[in-house]
Amino acid sequence: MIDNLKRLKAILAEETDLSRAAAVLDWDQETNMPPGGVAGRAQQLSTLMTLAHVRFTSDEVGRLLDALESEVANQQFDSDEASLVRVTRRDYEQERKLSPELVSEVAMAGATARPHWEKARRDADFKVFEPYLEKNVELNRRIADALGYAERPYDALLDRSEPGLKTSELEAIFGEIKSAIVPLVADIARNADAVDDRVLYRGFEPELQMQYALDVVGRLGYDLNRGRQDISTHPFSTSFGPGDTRITTRVSHGFFNECLFGSIHECGHAMYNQGIGENLDRTPLWDGASPGVHESQSRLWENLVGRSRPFWRHFYPSLQAVFPEPLRGVDEETFYRAVNRSYPSLIRVEADEVTYNMHVLLRFELETEMLDGTLKVRDLPEAWNSRVKSYLGITVPNDREGALQDIHWSSVSFGIFPGYTLGNLIGAQLMEKARADIPDLDAQIEKGEFAALLAWLRRNVHRHGRKFTPNELLERATGKPLTAAPWITYVQQKFGALYGLRAARK
Amino acid sequence: MIDNLKRLKAILAEETDLSRAAAVLDWDQETNMPPGGVAGRAQQLSTLMTLAHVRFTSDEVGRLLDALESEVANQQFDSDEASLVRVTRRDYEQERKLSPELVSEVAMAGATARPHWEKARRDADFKVFEPYLEKNVELNRRIADALGYAERPYDALLDRSEPGLKTSELEAIFGEIKSAIVPLVADIARNADAVDDRVLYRGFEPELQMQYALDVVGRLGYDLNRGRQDISTHPFSTSFGPGDTRITTRVSHGFFNECLFGSIHECGHAMYNQGIGENLDRTPLWDGASPGVHESQSRLWENLVGRSRPFWRHFYPSLQAVFPEPLRGVDEETFYRAVNRSYPSLIRVEADEVTYNMHVLLRFELETEMLDGTLKVRDLPEAWNSRVKSYLGITVPNDREGALQDIHWSSVSFGIFPGYTLGNLIGAQLMEKARADIPDLDAQIEKGEFAALLAWLRRNVHRHGRKFTPNELLERATGKPLTAAPWITYVQQKFGALYGLRAARK
Repeated sequence: MIDNLKRLKAILAEETDLSRAAAVLDWDQETNMPPGGVAGRAQQLSTLMTLAHVRFTSDEVGRLLDALESEVANQQFDSDEASLVRVTRRDYEQERKLSPELVSEVAMAGATARPHWEKARRDADFKVFEPYLEKNVELNRRIADALGYAERPYDALLDRSEPGLKTSELEAIFGEIKSAIVPLVADIARNADAVDDRVLYRGFEPELQMQYALDVVGRLGYDLNRGRQDISTHPFSTSFGPGDTRITTRVSHGFFNECLFGSIHECGHAMYNQGIGENLDRTPLWDGASPGVHESQSRLWENLVGRSRPFWRHFYPSLQAVFPEPLRGVDEETFYRAVNRSYPSLIRVEADEVTYNMHVLLRFELETEMLDGTLKVRDLPEAWNSRVKSYLGITVPNDREGALQDIHWSSVSFGIFPGYTLGNLIGAQLMEKARADIPDLDAQIEKGEFAALLAWLRRNVHRHGRKFTPNELLERATGKPLTAAPWITYVQQKFGALYGLRAARK
Repeated sequence: MIDNLKRLKAILAEETDLSRAAAVLDWDQETNMPPGGVAGRAQQLSTLMTLAHVRFTSDEVGRLLDALESEVANQQFDSDEASLVRVTRRDYEQERKLSPELVSEVAMAGATARPHWEKARRDADFKVFEPYLEKNVELNRRIADALGYAERPYDALLDRSEPGLKTSELEAIFGEIKSAIVPLVADIARNADAVDDRVLYRGFEPELQMQYALDVVGRLGYDLNRGRQDISTHPFSTSFGPGDTRITTRVSHGFFNECLFGSIHECGHAMYNQGIGENLDRTPLWDGASPGVHESQSRLWENLVGRSRPFWRHFYPSLQAVFPEPLRGVDEETFYRAVNRSYPSLIRVEADEVTYNMHVLLRFELETEMLDGTLKVRDLPEAWNSRVKSYLGITVPNDREGALQDIHWSSVSFGIFPGYTLGNLIGAQLMEKARADIPDLDAQIEKGEFAALLAWLRRNVHRHGRKFTPNELLERATGKPLTAAPWITYVQQKFGALYGLRAARK
């Protein structure tokens, strides 16, 4: 066993290094690369991803897994070795179904499309991006066909990102959310005057916002010795291993929320990666359990912590000291209410907690329809706009604020969006249990102490990396599989109180 | 032939992409990487370099070269195909002698040593760096032994970086330089008062220096659409392909020369890469001919252009407009003389044109002695300091300004330093011919027009990439092999005039 395991780990380490090098190249492309670098970068990424794929899907890895599966049969399910063999097998079976040519095409397509998406977005000109999105849809479909599926093509992509989850289950979850949220949105609309957020638009010096955000994420527990913050069009977090996990943000003079809440969000992702056990480094286990579980960490810190009353009880005085002008005469309660204002809006990443999941539902539906072929790419803007009208009651003025707003479709990544809603649900489910285990959590947050919460997340989520599927992880951490109930209860109570609604609905 | 060539090019393209990815990781390490990233980055670089090496040294490449050598036998020496086969064969034979384990160790050692060199340099504490340098010397020696040599281990390393050059030839060149420069230095010392450079230390706002330097390099011809400028400890230029060639610089409030001349120097390197024929992209031919030829471009722009009277006739008014305070009452001639002041100094990259080559001679001697084993690493600071005393007559106050000043020894790179002196010689030899071909060159420079000079360099040097050895290139461009005469004449005339010396010596 020693020899087989050692050999497998050597191959996986090499594959990890190639993937991490590709992640550095991606980060550089988003933050620093000059325009002329596009073509060369696409070639480099394609070569790295193809080599990683070829290395990982070799017959040798299959033979090593065959041998190791019997060797680890007596080990605990959650041991490092048994988990490594189990998860590597799952990845291996999926990756083996994808040809090196397809993997190379996918990498090339992503790197090639990105600048065209950026231009299209800047100019609000969907036509510029359309041929690249068509190519990406085709590649998503070819991946789904190669992986295979029982019912719908989307199942193949979904199971790849959120192991164990089916499209039909997701539809049921969205149904449950919809039936709770639609009446809540209507109630809030009737009491819209209860919350005034004009203070957020009074103008905040960008440099100071960046510095304040960096201070806050450091206080939450993001280790800047193993990280850094930069500016990019679309904020993201990326990791090149235990010692280097970076975040990006964007900053607007005219709107406060973008920078601070964007930074806290990405720092939630980054702290997850910084907490994965070093014993899992350079293996497929050194990563988040799934995009959904990863998003639970960003949303938990952004909303359940960062938009909570105790958080602002602690931070508001220092914020007011940094921005005396725009915050003149604004008290803590008013500011807390402002950052929690709920209203139908156009941009997903700026949407409030109540309406956010409707943005995800929209993308989930459009992805499945483009993948099934029932929606043509050229008809996407119209479908997008009419659905925003029907779900949120608002009009999309241009594609920059519509179908071009997210970076995701500029690469071949269908099946990732649902993770955003799963993140909201999982975050609330974990927080409910963390509160039970740390009875004075709010008092700690009021004092600016986040160590106990971070330690709870490290112990129950972070350190395990990718050992468990989302449901396995939730069962271990909370005693229950995934459920929408804690999140629904949370938003009903929080926004019921904020907007002075009668008893929380059930 | 089509098939063999196509297959060889596919392998070389993959190898190029891996090397370029490694270059991105290196750039990131120097400019952005947080301290925690060191260990992971070393692993990633080692994996990339090892894979590139294994790919390039495969038996298949040998078979393809065997087949292609007879297929291209009738082609012109300088055709793309014949050159590709010839240069790839030379690289292949050298690389085949290095085991993948050695290549991996070399990559790991470089990435591991760098932060310790940085710390040692910052703290002026050689002991911190000593064990890493010992390791690097050992690895340099193992490379030399693996490559083989007729006379001295250094021959093996020198031939790898400057094909066709022998250690004994280099010693002869340094002898010729020494016998011309030592008396010139003495003459200058006797007339030291002729040039006053105190204006350079009057304090220049760093932000404005960075912006001015960026403007200047853009005017010289550095294409910022395919490049960018950042800050790093040690300025460098790096290229990830035709569309992305970057420079770094450093900036000091207290000393003007660092930023502007550093930027022009690196932009000389960068314009070389930006001018290599795209027809050579993703092959071993897409690179400079040698470190020495590369340095000829940086030194030509930095000194023969950037420290010339016509250059300052054009730029001084705008510089004075940007820095009215420190340049108050300083006329163009005074400033021109200031940036050309010649005096013995401690730091190579800040040394003037006359004394610069003595700094290189020193390093060349110390490298050969460490490689031969006649100088122990622990004795390096003492050997450095005593040689600086004997060659330049000055005392080294600490190792930061002595043996720790250059980044080069933090990676396994003996044999690179001589290129700096070769660069001075080649730059002067090329410029002599360019002047003959562009009679009104000085008048053009006075008008801020650099296009004809850049076009001449593109045509005679840049576009050929690595097709030719340094001597082949010089023969084609100037009709002569490498000679020190043009450089010696240049410094004797320029500094003879600056310091009011009698007739230029011969």
